[in-house]
Amino acid sequence: MSISFDVQRTAEGGGRRAALTLPHGVVETPVFMPVGTAASVKAVEQGVLEKIGPENRGAQIILANTYHLYLRPGHELIARAGGVHRFMSWERPMLTDSGGFQVFSLSSLRKVTQDGVEFRSHLDGSKHFFSPEHSMDVQIALGADIAMVFDECVEHPATYERTRDSMGLTHAWAQRSKDHFELHKHRVPWHEALGGATQSLFGIVQGGMYVDLRKESADRLVEMDFPGYAIGGLAVGEPREVTREMIARTLEWLPKDKPRYVMGVGYPDEIEEYAKMGVDMMDCVLPTRAGRHGLVFARDADGVVVRMNIKRKEYAEDPGPIDASCGCMVCARYSRAYLRHLFVSGEPLGLTLNSVHNLHFYLATMERVRADIAGTARSHSTL
Amino acid sequence: MSISFDVQRTAEGGGRRAALTLPHGVVETPVFMPVGTAASVKAVEQGVLEKIGPENRGAQIILANTYHLYLRPGHELIARAGGVHRFMSWERPMLTDSGGFQVFSLSSLRKVTQDGVEFRSHLDGSKHFFSPEHSMDVQIALGADIAMVFDECVEHPATYERTRDSMGLTHAWAQRSKDHFELHKHRVPWHEALGGATQSLFGIVQGGMYVDLRKESADRLVEMDFPGYAIGGLAVGEPREVTREMIARTLEWLPKDKPRYVMGVGYPDEIEEYAKMGVDMMDCVLPTRAGRHGLVFARDADGVVVRMNIKRKEYAEDPGPIDASCGCMVCARYSRAYLRHLFVSGEPLGLTLNSVHNLHFYLATMERVRADIAGTARSHSTL
Ligand SMILES: [Zn+2]
Ligand SMILES: [Zn+2]
Repeated sequence: MSISFDVQRTAEGGGRRAALTLPHGVVETPVFMPVGTAASVKAVEQGVLEKIGPENRGAQIILANTYHLYLRPGHELIARAGGVHRFMSWERPMLTDSGGFQVFSLSSLRKVTQDGVEFRSHLDGSKHFFSPEHSMDVQIALGADIAMVFDECVEHPATYERTRDSMGLTHAWAQRSKDHFELHKHRVPWHEALGGATQSLFGIVQGGMYVDLRKESADRLVEMDFPGYAIGGLAVGEPREVTREMIARTLEWLPKDKPRYVMGVGYPDEIEEYAKMGVDMMDCVLPTRAGRHGLVFARDADGVVVRMNIKRKEYAEDPGPIDASCGCMVCARYSRAYLRHLFVSGEPLGLTLNSVHNLHFYLATMERVRADIAGTARSHSTL
Repeated sequence: MSISFDVQRTAEGGGRRAALTLPHGVVETPVFMPVGTAASVKAVEQGVLEKIGPENRGAQIILANTYHLYLRPGHELIARAGGVHRFMSWERPMLTDSGGFQVFSLSSLRKVTQDGVEFRSHLDGSKHFFSPEHSMDVQIALGADIAMVFDECVEHPATYERTRDSMGLTHAWAQRSKDHFELHKHRVPWHEALGGATQSLFGIVQGGMYVDLRKESADRLVEMDFPGYAIGGLAVGEPREVTREMIARTLEWLPKDKPRYVMGVGYPDEIEEYAKMGVDMMDCVLPTRAGRHGLVFARDADGVVVRMNIKRKEYAEDPGPIDASCGCMVCARYSRAYLRHLFVSGEPLGLTLNSVHNLHFYLATMERVRADIAGTARSHSTL
């Protein structure tokens, strides 16, 4: 079986507790997916990633970036190595994005036509071309459990006309992605090893900040019939109320029996909020990127999320952990004073420990949401 | 008990198998000590360091640098935190150097007088002064199990006269170090918690590359009666035969019932050779520094140490581990191809994994030497 999505319980607010079964394992949703850009969740070893989070159960699914792996080490090399799971030694579920977002945000000299996007590598300036068909070939070679359609990401803010035209292109590309994927999905490196299983291709709803375009996009994507749907083009600089409204509205138009994924969000309180609204999957570089900048998340006495800057002088002699209610290996062992020292001294271990704590914090947050929805909520202090 | 050294067996070549008991635990010698410059073995988490090496027994003792910790975060801060063990959450034995070597190699504008050394910080140019007495105060505040006398390290090459004069200063400073240490050793942060135990202060033999000066230095230090002796001023650019000769000769003049420590060496085959000659303790930044530069150690089919440059193109699609005979967590899980990708992509995980393998390689090498000496040798492929 390549994918199944079994909704076990839906709470009043719309949040659902479900089991998403993929070729590399079962994911309990709502789920947060750590980002492993270049086939590594930055500064965190896979063995640690397998034990992070409540009850040492580890990250259930991680994301890798198609654009980065295409450029280096190359998707064909990864296919020859057996796919990205085997290449990086991560045997649990994975998801790849389409490469579109990075092409639009990292590369230079982009030229978009109906056919696809020509761009220059941010690494060496070399020229490349991504079409929906090419993105599918690259993602099939990488072999994550879930692949994403190739879409155009509009800049923010964008006019109604610009957003509508871009959405039209995204829809045409979604159909081409699906057609090409269906023809070639049996080429995934583990097809035979996993009993004929294939990847699953998710569609992406666009439409910018315009509700009627979002509706049109959702309807059009649902017509195409994907096994899961992402809501793209959010968290690009718009106010948070707008993000929330776009998500809330779009969720209404997506099938209730399919996983729904919001890409690239967000802060811990955001992922909690969206999960309770009915979003099943989210990913974000924030826990690891913030960690590398010395920013760590904690909860105050009221359970409210606070962001601490570990390099602040006030922590220089603080013997306590980042968050006394956190059950992570960092909070169990290391003081704020030591973490501050590592960060101020530029010690690589500081990046690792901050990232591990933040990832645990995100996974524990989602565990709590899952328990809330399932009606088996426990205090966050036990996670 | 603050220190005991129990020689269990001496092999024909002079190598000895012994147990060195310190306030924070027992160290089986000969031992290699990973270097944790700024209270962190670079890029390696303490929990990993506790499990590295044969049979997951971990590093037995690590070193921290007095110069670095004095400048940042400051020895008084560390003393208030309970000492360096508690500060960094490492409960096994530790050793601090005297700060002398870094003052002479890293800082600028040094001015050496009979009293001590004035220097400027390599971090911010601020002015500092280290005397034997100050080095003792700093090391007592840090609270490693073993402290080192403050010595002058001559440049290499140095004339006979320059070396002799420097040695004279080193001897005067050794006596002053010892006198000050004896008066103040009860101030170590864990003095009461560990039942009145104190640190142990080791002497350092100098004398450059001149055998008669080495003899004079060894005799003078032994007169002062230290619980252990280091051979300093080696591996500063001299040919390896000279290093070996200086070690071999100096070992003859040092008491057989005290631990003997060669500072700052070396390659895996060197540490093996010196251990078999009767050196009990060694430290070196090489395994971690080489790892951060993409250099990893392995053994060829004949057991000879080879140094691999993991970023070489030939490893790009190599599915094998760094060293098939290595029992480390990196070789158990990750391919050369993946390690090359991490390194080439600048992923922090690459530094960690290379360092972990190299440290394991060093610890496994010493485990084999210990087994050889004890007459219970096993193949290195089981380590
Ligand atoms: Zn934590
Ligand atoms: Zn290894």
